[in-house]
Amino acid sequence: MRSCFLGTGGSWPTRERNVLSIALTHSRNTVLLDCGEGTQRQMIGSPVSPLKIDAIVVTHLHGDHFLGIPGLVQSMSLNGRKRPLMIAGPSSIHASVESSLSSTVFRPGFEVDVREMKDGDRLVVGSLTVRCASVEHGIEALAYRVDAPPRPGFFDRAKAESMGIPQGRLWGDLQRGKTIRSNQGGVDLEVRPEQIVGPARPGLSVVYSGDTLPHGSVAALSRDADALIHEATFSDRHADLARDYLHSTAREAAEIASEAGVGSLFLVHISPRYSAPDLIDEMRKEACEVFPGAIIPSDGECFEIGRRTNKPCKPEDGGAGAVRTCR
Amino acid sequence: MRSCFLGTGGSWPTRERNVLSIALTHSRNTVLLDCGEGTQRQMIGSPVSPLKIDAIVVTHLHGDHFLGIPGLVQSMSLNGRKRPLMIAGPSSIHASVESSLSSTVFRPGFEVDVREMKDGDRLVVGSLTVRCASVEHGIEALAYRVDAPPRPGFFDRAKAESMGIPQGRLWGDLQRGKTIRSNQGGVDLEVRPEQIVGPARPGLSVVYSGDTLPHGSVAALSRDADALIHEATFSDRHADLARDYLHSTAREAAEIASEAGVGSLFLVHISPRYSAPDLIDEMRKEACEVFPGAIIPSDGECFEIGRRTNKPCKPEDGGAGAVRTCR
Repeated sequence: MRSCFLGTGGSWPTRERNVLSIALTHSRNTVLLDCGEGTQRQMIGSPVSPLKIDAIVVTHLHGDHFLGIPGLVQSMSLNGRKRPLMIAGPSSIHASVESSLSSTVFRPGFEVDVREMKDGDRLVVGSLTVRCASVEHGIEALAYRVDAPPRPGFFDRAKAESMGIPQGRLWGDLQRGKTIRSNQGGVDLEVRPEQIVGPARPGLSVVYSGDTLPHGSVAALSRDADALIHEATFSDRHADLARDYLHSTAREAAEIASEAGVGSLFLVHISPRYSAPDLIDEMRKEACEVFPGAIIPSDGECFEIGRRTNKPCKPEDGGAGAVRTCR
Repeated sequence: MRSCFLGTGGSWPTRERNVLSIALTHSRNTVLLDCGEGTQRQMIGSPVSPLKIDAIVVTHLHGDHFLGIPGLVQSMSLNGRKRPLMIAGPSSIHASVESSLSSTVFRPGFEVDVREMKDGDRLVVGSLTVRCASVEHGIEALAYRVDAPPRPGFFDRAKAESMGIPQGRLWGDLQRGKTIRSNQGGVDLEVRPEQIVGPARPGLSVVYSGDTLPHGSVAALSRDADALIHEATFSDRHADLARDYLHSTAREAAEIASEAGVGSLFLVHISPRYSAPDLIDEMRKEACEVFPGAIIPSDGECFEIGRRTNKPCKPEDGGAGAVRTCR
């Protein structure tokens, strides 16, 4: 599962960070997590194509998480999109999308399929399953978990060879869960897939907190997820502001990640006041004291989310640099 | 009058050009001409402050001219703006602004004063007068003329000295149009301002076409303006597309500028298909065959509009480079 951080800033754009949007891609499906103003421009030069987005899920209806939708929809349409686009969000998402799309005279040339979500709801986006949980941000706000389908078990190549099963169609049948029958050197052979193929492995999963006070529902939703993308608007030096404005600090996000036992932690929604690199370093160190390896991605960075390991995408895929972890 | 080209592209953003927005500043007043998505981020590092914008005038309600408004309003409010913001546009602007602002749960902490405009209407924005004219773009669409107040006449310093009027308060009184009386060396002196100060000079004026087919109303509105900012979505090589989509070519914009006798011509709303510099050069040459000195500004360039002369702002004011004219 590839995670591209298109915008990683909070509240309003700065020179360094645009407002929030993260594209999760698995196989042929792409889900956009939030879509702040300017997201369509952030996609230029990234591996994310506006025409390949299946769904946009919106955490809450503050403008910095949502106002990129009408422009993106207009551009998709001007560039020939015909297939429907799903947009999901909290209970007022339907009215919001309608208002925002009707503010211009432009009408998209494809269906916009809006889904209102509440705590515990599920959504199917191609091969992906999206679940949500309520969080605490003063208005209706959701966190989302995206699960990819289970992966096939490991194929025991050595065992297949020792049993005399020839490589080719029969290996493929076994991988697809089919019992095979054949005659090898005059001996009738029947092999069940579970003799050669290990148990299915759980699919990869990523959780995105949206804006929230540190909240148990995010920890519960993130249980054993491969990655948690959590807001960290403030560092310890502004913990009082995090309380006042119903946000989290980097340290608190790390505590949630640690409690949930996730594979890796990405911190986003960084306050515009932290443009100096030393302030970002300070924030990362605070998180790493609790969750070693916490990452604060820059705009444009993409990561291949693996089972408890992340690697940046190849540069030709648009990945902007190396994984940055604690020093 | 300073003109800052925040976004100069048409239809959707590219790596090189964001969608349209131009900030005109004279004395203490700033009018934003259109406000495409991402305009607030384009202001970063420019001399344009979101808090100092008095009015946003919108030419028409296609998203690339308008969708930056709700995010800009939210950021103005989060940064403490209290004074009202005027937003003017075609007859449906009121419903559009209302829809777009109500799409999020955020409510601005200042009054948004929306004015619906039609052909011939006038608007006063501080010391500036804004007039509009209907143009032809398939939907209700307006061009705007912004006039600065007349400038005082030239003060004839040599004559004042030869008449024995001492520099200081009396010179100031004459400049402010007051007849002065004084006793110089035992001689009673009465001087009327028109003896020393020339006739008031017309104020500077800039016209912005919005999106339109080449149209006589723009030429009429631009009569003797100091600058015309005209859309030029296409070059001659796509003149058929200009007709089909109700836009202008660079050459047609130059013909309007020439007919109106404007001081200078800036071309904007450049189609996303012209990202290669040689295509921009071609477009500029076509315009310059009709109107020598036509300028295609880049995003971020600022120009000081003078009486038939333009100079780029000082680099410390955010001007991005030299005036680029025909080669």
